[in-house]
Amino acid sequence: MSTFEKTPLNKVVRGPKRADYDEATILEIADSHFLCHLAYNYEDTPIVIPTAYGRKDKTFYVHGSTKNRMINFLLNNERVSLTITHMDGIVLARSVFHHSFNYRSAVIFGKPRLVTDWDEKMEALELITENIIKGRWDEARIPNEKEMKATAVMAIEMTDASAKIRAEGANDEPEDMDLDVWAGVLPLNVGFSDPVVNTDCKPELPVPESVKNFKF
Amino acid sequence: MSTFEKTPLNKVVRGPKRADYDEATILEIADSHFLCHLAYNYEDTPIVIPTAYGRKDKTFYVHGSTKNRMINFLLNNERVSLTITHMDGIVLARSVFHHSFNYRSAVIFGKPRLVTDWDEKMEALELITENIIKGRWDEARIPNEKEMKATAVMAIEMTDASAKIRAEGANDEPEDMDLDVWAGVLPLNVGFSDPVVNTDCKPELPVPESVKNFKF
Repeated sequence: MSTFEKTPLNKVVRGPKRADYDEATILEIADSHFLCHLAYNYEDTPIVIPTAYGRKDKTFYVHGSTKNRMINFLLNNERVSLTITHMDGIVLARSVFHHSFNYRSAVIFGKPRLVTDWDEKMEALELITENIIKGRWDEARIPNEKEMKATAVMAIEMTDASAKIRAEGANDEPEDMDLDVWAGVLPLNVGFSDPVVNTDCKPELPVPESVKNFKF
Repeated sequence: MSTFEKTPLNKVVRGPKRADYDEATILEIADSHFLCHLAYNYEDTPIVIPTAYGRKDKTFYVHGSTKNRMINFLLNNERVSLTITHMDGIVLARSVFHHSFNYRSAVIFGKPRLVTDWDEKMEALELITENIIKGRWDEARIPNEKEMKATAVMAIEMTDASAKIRAEGANDEPEDMDLDVWAGVLPLNVGFSDPVVNTDCKPELPVPESVKNFKF
């Protein structure tokens, strides 16, 4: 895997020692989440929207209704970006100033493209579904023609990217080390609890493998 | 509390029945999270950045280094927005098409303003800290003059907002109800685990109340 060149676009300006331009690191962050945030401009106001994504090689896919305002606006952009954020912990320092988070975040830049090829579109929907919950595509009924026509898939061909990672304890000023203030990290994670079956689900159906094997 | 007028700016275009313009609902979503995503434009590319926030009445506060590119760019905007996303569950339907998420999200629009008043700035930092972990402000050393000067606080005066909420089971097509596919919800939440004390923390200091009482 390669390393992305640092440019004014993707360069991490603040906290540069936490920056990482290594493609493998960036893809690892991407492959361990399913929710990203994208932004589009409405009358000069950037609006951020959360959405699911999938990936194949350097192509990221997001989807929505064909009437989805964000996708329709972004397809007119020369370049878009997609941000993935893992919140790993709250860093408690002796000083308020050095409080921080542990996190892994990635910003992926690329040219957007409307996916019109049927097979690529079907595969993109499979990639998105499987990225959310592995194994589900083969359990559920796949999209029919009417549903495919109602769905827009946008591909983003990754051209630049950067990651920012913090994964350590509190870093305080030397003069604060003697304060009687506890310092450490409160680890956060994405948890999940027992599945809630639909009231109209056939009672004889067991909890599916996709749910039993779910990992985040 | 009031209800925000629906305009082309804040109107939820897709899934309008999941939209909510009620101020109390929007503030409840805001007050139960501490991480938001904002976007700014760099050479016509919207870039999304995660950051912490705090709130007092209709004013939201975010902070960063005085050299923070996003804050400096956004302060030139007439209007900015801030998105808060709770991911509450994965909705598994009989058809791939009706897979979805349960979530609570809010988009807050407002005019940005650099906070220059010392007292407001200090209070904003307290609001942000306390919104992350209640009780921490009184445990740690508060910012000194040098730290205050190195910190930029941006206020966003909320003028418009909208929320979007999904909180139910899978909704399938009538013709899919007889399929032998399990339907239901896998609930997700933000979990946390035992605090990790800094290796350089005084060993006699107990885990603080802020950590012991932490709730998300």
